[in-house]
Formats: sequence, structure tokens, C-alpha cells
Amino acid sequence: MIIVMSKNASRQEIDNVEQKLVELGFKTHPIIGEIKTVIGAIGDKRMMNTHTISSMPGVESLVPIMKPFKLAGKELKQEPTVVDVSGIKIGGSEIVAIAGPCAIESEESFLETARRVMEAGAKIMRGGAFKPRSSPYSFQGLEEEGLRIMAAAREQTGLKIVTEVVDTRDVEMVSSYADMIQIGARNMQNFRLLHEVGLTSKPILLKRGLAATIEEWLMAAEYIMAAGNENIVLCERGIRTYETSTRNTLDLSAIPVIKELSHLPIIVDPSHAAGNWKYVSALSKGAVATGADGLIIEVHLDPPNALSDGPQSLRPAKFAQLLGEIQPIALAVGRSISTAKV
Amino acid sequence: MIIVMSKNASRQEIDNVEQKLVELGFKTHPIIGEIKTVIGAIGDKRMMNTHTISSMPGVESLVPIMKPFKLAGKELKQEPTVVDVSGIKIGGSEIVAIAGPCAIESEESFLETARRVMEAGAKIMRGGAFKPRSSPYSFQGLEEEGLRIMAAAREQTGLKIVTEVVDTRDVEMVSSYADMIQIGARNMQNFRLLHEVGLTSKPILLKRGLAATIEEWLMAAEYIMAAGNENIVLCERGIRTYETSTRNTLDLSAIPVIKELSHLPIIVDPSHAAGNWKYVSALSKGAVATGADGLIIEVHLDPPNALSDGPQSLRPAKFAQLLGEIQPIALAVGRSISTAKV
Amino acid sequence: MIIVMSKNASRQEIDNVEQKLVELGFKTHPIIGEIKTVIGAIGDKRMMNTHTISSMPGVESLVPIMKPFKLAGKELKQEPTVVDVSGIKIGGSEIVAIAGPCAIESEESFLETARRVMEAGAKIMRGGAFKPRSSPYSFQGLEEEGLRIMAAAREQTGLKIVTEVVDTRDVEMVSSYADMIQIGARNMQNFRLLHEVGLTSKPILLKRGLAATIEEWLMAAEYIMAAGNENIVLCERGIRTYETSTRNTLDLSAIPVIKELSHLPIIVDPSHAAGNWKYVSALSKGAVATGADGLIIEVHLDPPNALSDGPQSLRPAKFAQLLGEIQPIALAVGRSISTAKV
Amino acid sequence: MIIVMSKNASRQEIDNVEQKLVELGFKTHPIIGEIKTVIGAIGDKRMMNTHTISSMPGVESLVPIMKPFKLAGKELKQEPTVVDVSGIKIGGSEIVAIAGPCAIESEESFLETARRVMEAGAKIMRGGAFKPRSSPYSFQGLEEEGLRIMAAAREQTGLKIVTEVVDTRDVEMVSSYADMIQIGARNMQNFRLLHEVGLTSKPILLKRGLAATIEEWLMAAEYIMAAGNENIVLCERGIRTYETSTRNTLDLSAIPVIKELSHLPIIVDPSHAAGNWKYVSALSKGAVATGADGLIIEVHLDPPNALSDGPQSLRPAKFAQLLGEIQPIALAVGRSISTAKV
Repeated sequence: MIIVMSKNASRQEIDNVEQKLVELGFKTHPIIGEIKTVIGAIGDKRMMNTHTISSMPGVESLVPIMKPFKLAGKELKQEPTVVDVSGIKIGGSEIVAIAGPCAIESEESFLETARRVMEAGAKIMRGGAFKPRSSPYSFQGLEEEGLRIMAAAREQTGLKIVTEVVDTRDVEMVSSYADMIQIGARNMQNFRLLHEVGLTSKPILLKRGLAATIEEWLMAAEYIMAAGNENIVLCERGIRTYETSTRNTLDLSAIPVIKELSHLPIIVDPSHAAGNWKYVSALSKGAVATGADGLIIEVHLDPPNALSDGPQSLRPAKFAQLLGEIQPIALAVGRSISTAKV
Repeated sequence: MIIVMSKNASRQEIDNVEQKLVELGFKTHPIIGEIKTVIGAIGDKRMMNTHTISSMPGVESLVPIMKPFKLAGKELKQEPTVVDVSGIKIGGSEIVAIAGPCAIESEESFLETARRVMEAGAKIMRGGAFKPRSSPYSFQGLEEEGLRIMAAAREQTGLKIVTEVVDTRDVEMVSSYADMIQIGARNMQNFRLLHEVGLTSKPILLKRGLAATIEEWLMAAEYIMAAGNENIVLCERGIRTYETSTRNTLDLSAIPVIKELSHLPIIVDPSHAAGNWKYVSALSKGAVATGADGLIIEVHLDPPNALSDGPQSLRPAKFAQLLGEIQPIALAVGRSISTAKV
Repeated sequence: MIIVMSKNASRQEIDNVEQKLVELGFKTHPIIGEIKTVIGAIGDKRMMNTHTISSMPGVESLVPIMKPFKLAGKELKQEPTVVDVSGIKIGGSEIVAIAGPCAIESEESFLETARRVMEAGAKIMRGGAFKPRSSPYSFQGLEEEGLRIMAAAREQTGLKIVTEVVDTRDVEMVSSYADMIQIGARNMQNFRLLHEVGLTSKPILLKRGLAATIEEWLMAAEYIMAAGNENIVLCERGIRTYETSTRNTLDLSAIPVIKELSHLPIIVDPSHAAGNWKYVSALSKGAVATGADGLIIEVHLDPPNALSDGPQSLRPAKFAQLLGEIQPIALAVGRSISTAKV
Repeated sequence: MIIVMSKNASRQEIDNVEQKLVELGFKTHPIIGEIKTVIGAIGDKRMMNTHTISSMPGVESLVPIMKPFKLAGKELKQEPTVVDVSGIKIGGSEIVAIAGPCAIESEESFLETARRVMEAGAKIMRGGAFKPRSSPYSFQGLEEEGLRIMAAAREQTGLKIVTEVVDTRDVEMVSSYADMIQIGARNMQNFRLLHEVGLTSKPILLKRGLAATIEEWLMAAEYIMAAGNENIVLCERGIRTYETSTRNTLDLSAIPVIKELSHLPIIVDPSHAAGNWKYVSALSKGAVATGADGLIIEVHLDPPNALSDGPQSLRPAKFAQLLGEIQPIALAVGRSISTAKV
């Protein structure tokens, strides 16, 4: 950590800061410049309260040298983490396709969708039983009945299932059904929920918050890992910007940045990012070429009659075609992907 | 609602959309332009699933004419809401100052701070017992012990108390102590938590999400109101932008916009917005002149030793001086504010 | 265009708006809803001043139905435009690589770089002779001497040359040397400069502004086209967001959105977007898979000694390797790209 | 400047960086941490090319300690600058109101508006003769005829005049008419134009770019000052964010931040920020209470018939009322403002 003293800081103020740093366990190295003094402080700031320093008289700013995350970063673990979702590996050489409707609407349609996306090459089925909707008047999900339907789909198709949890009180129930638990974008900084899913042994799909920095996202992973659960898959799903021609702005740069900073796998959700099925194919291909470890795509049998997110859903046939088109791109970047057997 | 058909939409597609609208209970008015057809649909879209329409073949976009919120808007209630916090009125002619430390650290310091901010003119005391911290290694609050300390401060000073709840499981406990419950920025779209506090009878301080639009913010209020609790005070606390010279960008325009769209009162948190105590005075004055119904300001006896948010906290003497400086501004906009008796 | 009247609009106000619309040449279709009246107005708003309407008493908002651009859109021209840069086609089946240093620093290094990128497969050479630098104390470019060096490189290698113009007074000089003229991000809304390059017959490389919407970007193209020059290649180079781990956020969604809205070709600049050479390969691959018509990449013989943008520059060998890795991706999306002969 | 070496940097790489720093004239202070080494470099980086360092092997990042601006900052000049616009002082104790229409439309209406805003208390008249419009089909201004009309208004009313220049070729002409030259938001990084107006002796009104950081804005001022013109008034006019309920998000925090970093005066344009006349009064009051040195407000005799920006324009009577309401706020913050004589 570097402490930058203001140009008017007195000798006494500089001494006070150094002394405080020493008290906090740092080794200090003051550098007296022509205009300002800066103090290098050696030690691990992650476990201590640096606000103490930044409020001291004469301090202009603190510059962290170390990243604030530890378990999610590469210091302690260099090799990529491969997360095992009931036998399906995310982060290995195979790119994993996750697909399904935004919300589970009925058993019949969900089972039919499951069959179709499984045939297309998907390995994991998505579906919302608890839906965080921006209006209290919108369909909020089938809740436990939805989880039961997902389990039935798993039994019939062999697909693994991932579903979102939105309340600490539901974590136990959701984890008793699901193979993988999703933390949605709106809950990325619901720290209690992060802690609670960190206490389970299920793999976690951690979506990036709507306006979260990559560092905040990795700190959310750190919360889960600090609670004991290291099976985390990150999911880039678009960030909020001023641009309105897509629902969010898909930040594919996050893929190489995450690969640089962390050992965790990262997948991409082009459906929520674009908010428009027309752009899903192009962005899926882009994501795979950029290095994504998987895709999570909304697929609905009949988008115009979907209870949620119809406009961004692909039909099963289009989804199958997309996986086929992705295959040569996956191969071009040294990966593979399952596609429909023809 | 207006449905814009794409310029290539067929006669059949247009007819299908009209028919679907009629099924959904709308009256339709097609307008056939030179290039595109648009269909006016009369009825209340808030209770229905408009995705159904936007995914239909030939539909380019939907344009909502009505705002999605109902209880939070002015359609049903024109006059401003005045929220009563155990006798303190927010939204009336008096501008209410809320003050206190970010986190409750000890009984002694909290009681002393309470005494000081009460003397300065504050009517409500803030303090965090459950802290949503971005690092799992940071101080997370004293939890119920913190609530007990707050209650003791209320008893000794007469100040009302507001504190944040971060978990549905804690709502009952927090509401048994607090006069007002805070929903923090990170939980503005934690819909389960919104619903849960909506079931209590306590006034709610609803902070704007880090990257929430004003419409989303009012929809969060709608969630609470739809659950039965109409005592909501909105709190603007800065939004995330590209600018880094302040922690967030305080959006004071939100004040007149909220006054235009809603009957709910709105207060401003300049401390979290600026992230730097140096800017708190200027922004507090600006907020009052712009029309804020109150201020919530971080005050700490000894900012350099605060366990959280020290850099943005004012000392009690500075806070008292600020309220004194605000008084003539409050008068200039036809309001009043309590200040230290001198 | 749809005019939404406020819910308190009087009969007289509604009549006045209708009458004004008729005066302006629109056909009107009022729709009287339960709460609000909306007026459909048929006609082309692009040539008229709609502010007239939006300021009239009782008007709540205007909703445009038609896009504001005409020449840049698909209404008048459906088939993709292929721009010819002295024989090199951008927008056809071949993906074109443009490469070179940020700034031209010396004849020797530029010629050597030209030879190397040409061997790697680049078709067009980039290089800045006039540099828009954020500090007045930074190197501002070699100006006409730089243009002369570029022309020499073209003569020796056969590469075509693209370079930026930053002042209306230089357009004639720059166009006398360059095969293609670049409008940089900071000048995307320098409308006089857009008009001036629109008067030349040179192809224009129009970079997206730092915080420009896609619609504003196409309006900038419209300015050039309205002046008579239809040879425009758009270039996505990252937009400004709150995320700081990359210099800008590369918006690859812009590719399918532009393909939906416009007939103009679009290329991608991963170097300026990322601001870090480590991310350039991944993003280049992502761009090609998403559908980009070309890439513009910063290449420098010795990045640590570059006078500008060294951190984001690739060395020639790395650039050659990248084009080789892109080739199978290009083929996977039905395109081709030139690579080093091995 | 602090150079942070990556945790894998070799001894040789660290030595190379130190040696390079020494060559560049820095004194170096390496600090060897447990995991990373950082090198403190003492000297003024503003005049040198730091990219050289950041591209060297083993370098992770550079942390500037000094601000990049020199003339615009407070190092060399502590006391506030008061800019003299033909006798009107901006930055002193009086808050200056600038008013007028977006575009000059006709002599008659402009003279009438001038008379009205002068009576209301305005000291300087604004009006666009060269309009940067986002559509090539919109009214682009009366050009020199507009400047002539402005000069006539000055003669009749005594108001000083400020108008925008958008092309380096027009700087001489505009400065021959105007008392103050405006650089608009879109041209804040048109460095050639900044340099050109820096060569004149006229005061410059420098609007903040649409997505400019405060540091970039001060660097734009630095460009003008480096060319020899130190008479600069900054103008905050809203920045681009994701929020759409106002045209831009007015960043009033910029006022105390600028006062902290710079000696230059700062005024506020609430009209362009809000894009809606309804919010102009509240924001004007907020700006003055926050510490603005002036206001620039769009005033039009007949907003519904304005050729540009009608929706955000006040009528003269409303403007006069506003200045009257601002007066007690100005007094409350120790300033004054001229208002209509009653």
C-alpha cells in the first residue's frame, strides 16, 4: 500500500501516519519528493481497516498495491479451476452449453424444452423457479413446484439443473433440488445470500452485477469462498451503460481480464445482455472465440407466449443450429462443444 | 401502449397482433403510416405480460405510455406524502436531519455521538448494526448488540433511530428495535426483502440502487407498497458513473424528477455520494436548495479511527456548523431546519 | 411520430397540437385512452423541427417511430456497402487487417513496421501524423512529415494508408496523401470536420465516439453522407463505462446492431478498447466471430519505447501469430483473412 | 510516480526499470514488499512519456502521484481566478447570470429577449450562431449574421455576449464579435480548437465534455492556458449516464471538486443538463447553494416555436422570477446576484 501525503502535510502529520502504520503491523518506507511525500507500507492490507489511515490529517489518498481478493485470485492458486456440476466439467477443454427458459411455466413445456435442448447439445438445463421481477405485478415463478419440475426433467433427460435462489430462507430447499445454484445479477452484493450459499457444497453460478466492477465481482466470489465453497463459475451477462440499443452492454473483455486475475471459470449469457434474440447468435460466437468456458442461453418453445423474457429467447431449432455453428469456432480456439447428432 | 410494427410486417402479422391485444383486453387503434404501421392499445398494461406482444412476428417494439408504477405514482394520490417516524415528520415543511456513524462501534461512542448530533439539530440517528461490506474480511457490524445500543441512545436522547436490514430473517428483529428501517442501495432490488419490510408497519428509508434508474427505484417502492406499507422515504445517495473524483455521482436532478412523478418524500445522502467529507457541506446545501426533504449525514467522533467510512464522516462540531449554514437556505426555499441552540 | 399528451391536457391543448401537426404536414390520428390521449402523426419528422411540438402546453413526450438517419440506414439501401480503399475491399467476404503504430515516429521504424505487418497479412497501414493527445505536453505527431513517411511506406510495400485528420484546415492535405481518412473518437461529433471530409472522395474510417450511442454514430455517418461521401467504414473502439480494468469497454454487440440498422461495414479496434496488449488477441478473435468486417490493431517494433500507446501495442511477430490464429475463426463464420505465407 | 512491478518480475527487470527511470531524470526509491516490488520515482512526469515505462517487461502498473495539469491546478496559483468579461467579473462575490436562446433565430426576437433577460438581472447574453446539431438536417445557425445580431443586442442593452465557435477557421471571426468564446461539450477535446482559442485574448467558456472526467476537463483548460490564454471559466452541463429521466445527469459535485483542484471559476448550465424546463429552477438553486460562480440558462420568448432546444427553455418572466428566488440563496452562501428591479 502506498500512502500519498498532501503537499501541505506537516512533518508531524507524516510522522503520525508512519507511526500508525507501524502500529498496524506494516513496515514503512517514506519517499520524500519535491512536492509531496509518499509512504510505502509493506504488509497485507486485506485483513485490516485502511480507512483508519485515509482519514488521518495530511493524507491525500491511499493506493492499494495488492488486489483485495485472495482466494479468488491467482496468488494462492495458479492453475485454472474446473468446476464439477454433477459430472459436467466447466472450465476444462469442453465448452458447456446451458439452456432453458427464463421461468419454468409448466411441467409439460419444461420437459419438452429439456428434451430439445439436450438433443441440441446442452449439458445443463436452466429455469427460474424464483424470479426476481422488477414489477410486483409480474409472474414471480412457480417456487417449489418449479424445482420439482426441474428435478423431473433431470430424471427424464440426464441434464443437470441450475436455478436461482433469491432468499437466504430458500437456500436449503433449492440446494436439495439443484445441481448448481445461481446467484443472479441483482443479488451479486447480497452478502448474506453469498455467505449462505457458501455454506452449501453445491457449485455456484455467480452472475456479474448490473453495474459491478470486475473487482467487486471477484470479491463476491471471495465471500462465497471465504464461507467454504470454492466451486464457483462466473457469468458475464452485460453491464449497464448509456447505450440503449441493447438491454445491457455485454463486456466480453471481462473474459481475458478474469483469466488474468483469477483461476475461476467464466461463462457468458448473451440472452440477458442483448435482450433481443436477433443478437444472441453473433454474441455467442464472439464469446466462445474470446475464450468463454461456456454459454447460458434462453431457449423457449414459443417465445411470443413466454411468461418472461420472450423477446430474447431462441427457439430450440435455432439453438441447435447455433451450437452447430459454434463448433468450428470452439475448435479454432482449441476447445470443443457438444452439438446435435446428425 | 403503442405497438410499432416493423416496416416489413405483413397484413396477417398486423392482424394477429391486433387480435392478441383484443384477447388481452385492450381496445386497439391501428395507424397505417407510409412506412410502418403502429397500433395504439388502450388499457392498463401493468397487470399483464406485454412480452407476449413484443415477441410476436412483425413487432418491432413496444412503447409504454403509462408508467409501470401505480401506488408510488401520482395517478391515485396527488398530494405529497408526509411520513411519520415516531412523531418526526418527513416530507412536511421542516427539513429533517438524520445523522450518525456508518457502523455502531461501541455503546460509549454511539451515545456520545447521539448526544452531539441531537444538540446540533438532528432528529433521527443513523447507525449500522448489519453492514453490507464489499469484503468478507471487513467489520460486519455488531448485529443485535448494535440494535440494543441504538435503543439505549433513543432512550437517552429522544432521537428516533433508523438502521439497515440486509436479510429477510432479520426483519422482525430489526423492526422490533428501529423507528425506521433502511433498505440499502445494494438491496434496492432484493425483492424478497422489499416484500418482507412491506409487511411491517415501520416507515422505510429506501436508498436508490447504485445503478438504478428513477423508474426502477419507484418500482422498488411499489413492491413495498404493494405489500401494504405506504410509509416510504426515498433516499438519493449517488449513482455509479465513469467519474472517479467522487465515490459516486450525486444525482440531485432526481429530486425534481421524483417530485414530478411521485408523492413520496425524498432525502439526500451526500456522505456516501461524495465519499469525502470535504464535499459534504457543499452538497448538503445544494440538496436543500434543490428541494430535498431531509439529509442523512455520516457523523463520527473520530473519523480517522472509524471502523467504516471514516473518510466521508464529519465531526460533530462540523455537522452542527453545517446545519447552521443550511438554515438560511432552507428559509430561502420556504422550509425550516432545526439547528443548535446558541 | 407519436405525441403523448399529459393526463391533465385540456381538449383545447389537444386540438392545438393536432392543428400544429397538420400545419407541419403530418396526418394525425388521435387515440383517446382512459387516462391519456396520444396522437399518431404520419409523415417524415427527419426534415422538421419536432421541438416545436414537444414544447406545446399539454404535451408530455414525443415518441419517434422512424430512425433519424436516412442515408446510413437500410430504408433506401438494403444490400451491404463494400468500401473500396484503393483496391482493398472492406465489407466483402475478406476480413481486412489494418495495422501499424499509434504515431509515426521515424521513417526508418515506420518502414520496417510496414514491411513486417504486410508480411503478416495486413492490407492497410495505420499511423498517426496528427495526434489528439489529452495533454498539451505530449508528442503531437510529425504532421506533414508523417504523411510523407506514410506515402513512402505505401510505395515500398503496396500497403494502403489510413491516417487521422483533426482539423478542417488539414483535410485537403491529408486527403492528398492518404487512401483512407480517419475521424477519431474525439471528433465523432465535430460536425464541421465530418462535413469537410464528406466533401472529399476518400473513404472515411469513422470511429465511434467515447460515449456515443449507436444512433449518434450513425448520425455522424449521415453527416458525411449528406455532404456527398458514401464510402464510410464504422469502427467500434470501446465506450466509456464505470469499469476500469480495461481502458474502455469494447461493445461487440455494436456489430450485430449495426448490421441490423445499417448497410455500412464495421471494423473493430481492440487495442484502444483494451488499452493493454494482453487482451488484444482474445478480443480480436471475439470481434471476428461476432461478425466484424475488419480489425485495426496497434503494432509497434518496440512497445516500451513507443512515443504513444505502447502498452496496448503488439510486436510484429505476435501480430502475425494472431492473424494466423484468426484464420480458422474467419473460415468458421464464412469469411477469410490474409495471413503470413509460411 | 510509483511503478508497481508484477509479482513475477525478475531482479533484472526491476533493475532495468530503475535504470530507465534514472535515464529519464527521476530519482528512484525501490520498496521490496513480500510479494511485489514498487519503485518510487521522484520528478515531474508531466513533461515526459511515461508509456515508455509502463510497457517495460515486469511492470504491472504506473501510479501517478501528481496531477497531470499544472497551469489549471493550484500548485502555481492558490488564489481563485476572477475572469473579466468586458467588465463583468466571474469568480468574484457576485454570481453572474448568463441567459438567452439556444440559437439566434432573428434580430427582432433576439433583441427583445436581450432586453428581457437584461431587465431580469442577466449580465451576459448567450446565443448560438454556429450550432453543432446531431442531425445534418437540423437548423445549423445564422453564422456571421447571428454574430452581427448579437453585437447589435450588446449595443442596445449593454449585455456582454458569449457564443460558441466550432471550427478553427472561424475563431478569428467569432472573437472579433464576442466578449467571451464558448467551447461546447462536443469540442472539449478538439485540441486544435482549444489551441486556437488559446491564442486569442478573449475569455473562454469551457463546457465539460459529455463524458469527460474532471481531470480531462482540466487538461482541456490546460491546453488553452498552455497556448497563452488564462481567462477560462469552466461550465458543468451534465454528463452522460444510464439515467434517462433527464437529458444528462447534472454533476453538482464537480463544483466542490473543481474548487479543491483548480483556481478557475465554474458555472452551471441546468438547461442542457435537465433537457426539461420544469427542472431548471430547482437545479439552478441547487447549483448556487453548492457554490457555482454563475449560471447559464436558456431563455426563449416562445419555447414552443424555438428552432432548437425549446423544451428546456424558460420564458423571460419565469427567468426573472427564478433570479429573484435565487437571491436569498446567494446571500445564504455569502454571495450576491443581480435581479429585476421591482
